[in-house]
Amino acid sequence: MLMVDLILKKRSGHELSDEEIHFLITEYVNGNIPDYQMSAFLMATYFQNMTEHEATALAIAMRDSGKVYDLSSIKGIKVDKHSTGGVGDKVTLVLGPMVAALGAKFAKMSGRGLGHTGGTLDKLEAINGFKIEQSEEDFVKLVSKYNIAVVGQSDNITPADKKLYALRDVTGTVDSIPLIASSIMSKKLASGADVIVLDVKVGSGAFMTSLDEAEKLAEVMVKIGRLAGKKMTAVLTNMDEPLGHKIGNGLEVYEAIETLKGNGPKDLVEVCSEIGAYQLVDAGIITDFKKAKLKLEKTLTDGRALNKFREMVLAQGGKIDQIDNPELFLTAKKHEVLANKSGYVEKMITSDIGTAARLLGAGRLTKDDELDLLVGIDLHLKIGSKVEKGDVIATIYHNDKGLKEAEKILQNAIIIGPSKRSVTLIEKTIR
Amino acid sequence: MLMVDLILKKRSGHELSDEEIHFLITEYVNGNIPDYQMSAFLMATYFQNMTEHEATALAIAMRDSGKVYDLSSIKGIKVDKHSTGGVGDKVTLVLGPMVAALGAKFAKMSGRGLGHTGGTLDKLEAINGFKIEQSEEDFVKLVSKYNIAVVGQSDNITPADKKLYALRDVTGTVDSIPLIASSIMSKKLASGADVIVLDVKVGSGAFMTSLDEAEKLAEVMVKIGRLAGKKMTAVLTNMDEPLGHKIGNGLEVYEAIETLKGNGPKDLVEVCSEIGAYQLVDAGIITDFKKAKLKLEKTLTDGRALNKFREMVLAQGGKIDQIDNPELFLTAKKHEVLANKSGYVEKMITSDIGTAARLLGAGRLTKDDELDLLVGIDLHLKIGSKVEKGDVIATIYHNDKGLKEAEKILQNAIIIGPSKRSVTLIEKTIR
Repeated sequence: MLMVDLILKKRSGHELSDEEIHFLITEYVNGNIPDYQMSAFLMATYFQNMTEHEATALAIAMRDSGKVYDLSSIKGIKVDKHSTGGVGDKVTLVLGPMVAALGAKFAKMSGRGLGHTGGTLDKLEAINGFKIEQSEEDFVKLVSKYNIAVVGQSDNITPADKKLYALRDVTGTVDSIPLIASSIMSKKLASGADVIVLDVKVGSGAFMTSLDEAEKLAEVMVKIGRLAGKKMTAVLTNMDEPLGHKIGNGLEVYEAIETLKGNGPKDLVEVCSEIGAYQLVDAGIITDFKKAKLKLEKTLTDGRALNKFREMVLAQGGKIDQIDNPELFLTAKKHEVLANKSGYVEKMITSDIGTAARLLGAGRLTKDDELDLLVGIDLHLKIGSKVEKGDVIATIYHNDKGLKEAEKILQNAIIIGPSKRSVTLIEKTIR
Repeated sequence: MLMVDLILKKRSGHELSDEEIHFLITEYVNGNIPDYQMSAFLMATYFQNMTEHEATALAIAMRDSGKVYDLSSIKGIKVDKHSTGGVGDKVTLVLGPMVAALGAKFAKMSGRGLGHTGGTLDKLEAINGFKIEQSEEDFVKLVSKYNIAVVGQSDNITPADKKLYALRDVTGTVDSIPLIASSIMSKKLASGADVIVLDVKVGSGAFMTSLDEAEKLAEVMVKIGRLAGKKMTAVLTNMDEPLGHKIGNGLEVYEAIETLKGNGPKDLVEVCSEIGAYQLVDAGIITDFKKAKLKLEKTLTDGRALNKFREMVLAQGGKIDQIDNPELFLTAKKHEVLANKSGYVEKMITSDIGTAARLLGAGRLTKDDELDLLVGIDLHLKIGSKVEKGDVIATIYHNDKGLKEAEKILQNAIIIGPSKRSVTLIEKTIR
């Protein structure tokens, strides 16, 4: 098999066989296929796309390039979720305890990621002592005992995806749906759960800004998961405004705890109960979706979800004082941002709000950037909120760094006008 | 300027500026742009094409990456030609002496090339002692004194094109019209002539098998040349059958000498006088195209073209005995191929005929293959020829190597049937 023939095959729009895709990935990881051939293949893929069958073969080949977790010794059906990333996305912190409280095995591996704020791991590290690095054995033990663990992925998970992603990043081949889908799914498949719910974000703060594109991506991911033997759901949720009110690592843990106490923002609760209900149904714990949602919401008011969260924090070495006194997450300097006109919040340029948070120190631009886990933004408004000139529209939590620029960006990113608009939170579900 | 931005710009179909293309080529040659980014750019170019303006900027940037010949000290207008390559193409050997005999300055640099037979340089090396390597100074002297020189290109001509071509070869990005056009034209521009006539071959023995594609390529090349200040013509000539009868290095020199004596095959004479007439008109030597053609044809019957060829061979160190006794080129073993049915030659799979010649040792598959300059094929028929079963349709000149396979290929490549067909030799002219 010659790589140049595979490039030409893809270039002319033909479907590669499983064997050809396996060859492509194993020989690339072995160093027998050079970067310059792979990047030509990736660009041809950008233009010619891949069938769902090809994307599945690619995800499986990447999964098999490294460590594959074996969770079979955990009794019951293991559930997982993945978000394509948005601003203020603290779903895992709330959802995990909710479903675990109802008996699901929430076995979650998270990444750090680059972006507006840190990944789930960074958020959890805002909790003093919380240990995200766990061996496979300990991960299995934690999930078996507490129904929940949120840990970092092994460095050796999907090395093919890591190598390929680094190449895509510098060759203009990131935004290809089959490449994105197989990259995400390779990691999900390697993580070992049986039930996967994908939270595909759509809108001005998401990687996918159009519903159409997000839907295509979701469909390919669902198909890959199914072809690889998983129970799959994708929920397309709106990201035209940040989820909840708070953005920033510690601030988001604060909001998660408030939500676990039953005081959470409506949109965050809705996304968590929607995703959780699909997990419970697919895990065979509750058959009726609507009942599952109601039961999940009840865990927020009766203390069971918060209790589960406390259990998880303790089990993973975290100090409990911040959980019991979440105002400890709000100790950075505060600066109020005032509305410069009256009207309704018509629109948010959510990616810019994310950028403002990153400039304060909440997120990374490169892998080596250090995070300030206590800075961030508390938005007092959602799309449709009424506002009078001079009202406080946001509180910036800062340690001086980036404050001026962040405030300026925020002022321009929250668009106030005469029309009262609303947002559809759950845009679509693919099952 | 970031290479990844240029990749994305091309990927989305936008036109790159001259500065961007200059950056692309100079930084690639300097090693500051890695192969993996360039190959992604090339694949994006395959899909998104280039404007004529971009292709010109690319040709000029590649020209300027290495040695550019300065022929200004040669008095008069220098003429050049280029063939995109076909089977049995010995045009340069005949055309050069014809136009030189009428006062044009035929300043030709040739390559060796891979393919069915060697390039013009290999053909000339079938003449004992012929020296194709000449310094720029000697090249200028030869053209000044004899009106003609056919030499090898400096190793340092268009290094960017060499590096890029090697990458295209292994990344499935060879057959992109702007890349082919700028590659060819970069070398033509570096060779320094004022008038360029391109012989773009079309058909079963050519790189371009469809007239439509050949025309597109020709148009881009003509445009590049004009934008770079050259007088340009492209003649699209048919390559559905080999040009003339003989294929193979020494065999082609034999046929060239026969043509220079006035005994040449009609198609070869026609292509040479057509190309030559455009050169003479553009050089301002003869104003009327038809008159120019007649005058050129006369040089074949009155001995002036042959005399010019002898002069060139002597001036470049060649022994004259083979020129005066061309049967010295026909000393390999002979094997006759017989028709296995009666009818007309309806079609030739010309690329297969070329392959047969290569298998005998007339051409190279890789740069290191050694040529046998005396082997080849003498086709006794053209498309439309009447043939009886048992007639000799071809004579194979061989030294045992590849004989059986070559004969088998030949039998299948010459298709005999009931219909008498004909070929249009000059398909189109772009001026």
